[in-house]
Amino acid sequence: MLVDYATGDDAGVFRLPDGTLLVQTVDFFSPVVDDPYSFGAIAAANALSDVYAMGGRPLTALSIAALPEQDFPWEWSAAILRGGYEKLREAGCVLLGGHSVRDAEIKFGYAVTGVVEEGQILSNAGARAGDILVLTKPLGTGILSTALKAGAAPDHAMQEAARSMARLNALAAQVAQQQGAHAATDITGFGLIGHALGLARQSGVTLEVRAADLPLLPAALDLAPRFQPGGLGANRRHFESELAYLTTIDDARKALLFDPQTSGGLLLALPAQAVEAFLAAVPESRVIGAVVPAADTPLRLC
Amino acid sequence: MLVDYATGDDAGVFRLPDGTLLVQTVDFFSPVVDDPYSFGAIAAANALSDVYAMGGRPLTALSIAALPEQDFPWEWSAAILRGGYEKLREAGCVLLGGHSVRDAEIKFGYAVTGVVEEGQILSNAGARAGDILVLTKPLGTGILSTALKAGAAPDHAMQEAARSMARLNALAAQVAQQQGAHAATDITGFGLIGHALGLARQSGVTLEVRAADLPLLPAALDLAPRFQPGGLGANRRHFESELAYLTTIDDARKALLFDPQTSGGLLLALPAQAVEAFLAAVPESRVIGAVVPAADTPLRLC
Repeated sequence: MLVDYATGDDAGVFRLPDGTLLVQTVDFFSPVVDDPYSFGAIAAANALSDVYAMGGRPLTALSIAALPEQDFPWEWSAAILRGGYEKLREAGCVLLGGHSVRDAEIKFGYAVTGVVEEGQILSNAGARAGDILVLTKPLGTGILSTALKAGAAPDHAMQEAARSMARLNALAAQVAQQQGAHAATDITGFGLIGHALGLARQSGVTLEVRAADLPLLPAALDLAPRFQPGGLGANRRHFESELAYLTTIDDARKALLFDPQTSGGLLLALPAQAVEAFLAAVPESRVIGAVVPAADTPLRLC
Repeated sequence: MLVDYATGDDAGVFRLPDGTLLVQTVDFFSPVVDDPYSFGAIAAANALSDVYAMGGRPLTALSIAALPEQDFPWEWSAAILRGGYEKLREAGCVLLGGHSVRDAEIKFGYAVTGVVEEGQILSNAGARAGDILVLTKPLGTGILSTALKAGAAPDHAMQEAARSMARLNALAAQVAQQQGAHAATDITGFGLIGHALGLARQSGVTLEVRAADLPLLPAALDLAPRFQPGGLGANRRHFESELAYLTTIDDARKALLFDPQTSGGLLLALPAQAVEAFLAAVPESRVIGAVVPAADTPLRLC
């Protein structure tokens, strides 16, 4: 075993007897959108993302399903599975099996196995002072999903969120490797701040994030004061003491810093000379800050 | 992909680019015993069993946990995880990660990855007329767990059931390979009959099972009329039409034929000359019948 859950990396890495490096991860969750096909696709993109975040190539998946017996048409179950299956296909990943149980609360996801070349592993431990921080998807999926449950998410914003969550991090990871990224992590349940702190700590550096430059989903700022998922408050309680605010940030934007993301983007530490090529090759990616030598706090908002 | 969920085999098999064959499986379920440590160990033994049933060697595991937030002391969660972890260690399998969610109903299990040598794959498709059928664990775990929930399972019987469910199928699989077993499957949710039918169909043969020779857990026959899990009736409805009863079997014993098993034994089709050595090497294994040429029904009870 080279990397396990204790290192805070996105997936575990295991060396087979013949030297091949397996990358493995598991994730499943309750619906974040109304459409079952879209939910399945998002669950697959989310599980695959941990393999991409390590620089790996996903090969196989096992589905994990908890689906209601009552008031749940079989067409919905079929649509969830089909959405996931087609997203796995897009990733070149084979569905090898799975397990389903009956459960009052819907949950769906995958255990994914990939391979990674020794020299290609993207770790969260390699960021260096002078690197530029790039985020490849907009923030706000937790706030939008929470608003959706209250019937308060505008359709166009929710469609944009669903599209973003279903988008594979495959291209972003591939270009990151080509451009010699020094560190990578994907943004999921701990929010931008939680995962950025993991990267800062593992790399022994401080990250400076410019709050005004963060890419946000449509309507996310408007909805943030009223629709915060439970995990957002937990993230804030856990992580806020490790931040320094060098500027005033309004409460709505602050909430988005801690918003738990489903199938979020990659946060990358790129060498400065690679940024232009990266932004040109990966649509929707944005520069959000820079890496500086380790300071009082591992993370500064400015 | 060599073997997937469509073939009815116990786990999927995937060929890596370098030729290595991965064996992968996932399973998780609600508690079948009261003791959390024991439940964790059983969940691990059960998930590992699918790899053993294919002739594989388990290497890595990802845990899948749904645990209550309320009225569930953290010591219980810790005991479940520890029971599973120590069972994985016994199997030489590394815990590489996992995912937990909050859920009112406890569920726990693993996605397991192993490797198998090309010539060593135990399939359910190789049984031949003249082979002897051997079962390596007693039946009745579903009935005993159901009785336990009603407070009606005798302590000694439940202890025996827990011990049997936590026992790895590693030795049985290893000896089966050494002795040239022609086919293997592990007995889980579809019960002895469901899994035996799968083996018979895939092999194109008929199995003759001697009901009187089936190994049973203590108290299982006494409890069978009153404590039948939901899956037992479903198995009977699905599979009974494919059986021929050549003798009268009382209702209690009949129930055990269809009882869904957790972490059940291996059902093996062994060449006749290998049986003596197998029984000597694998404690608690029993001859339960024989393989004959394909007849009117794929399974006969006699």
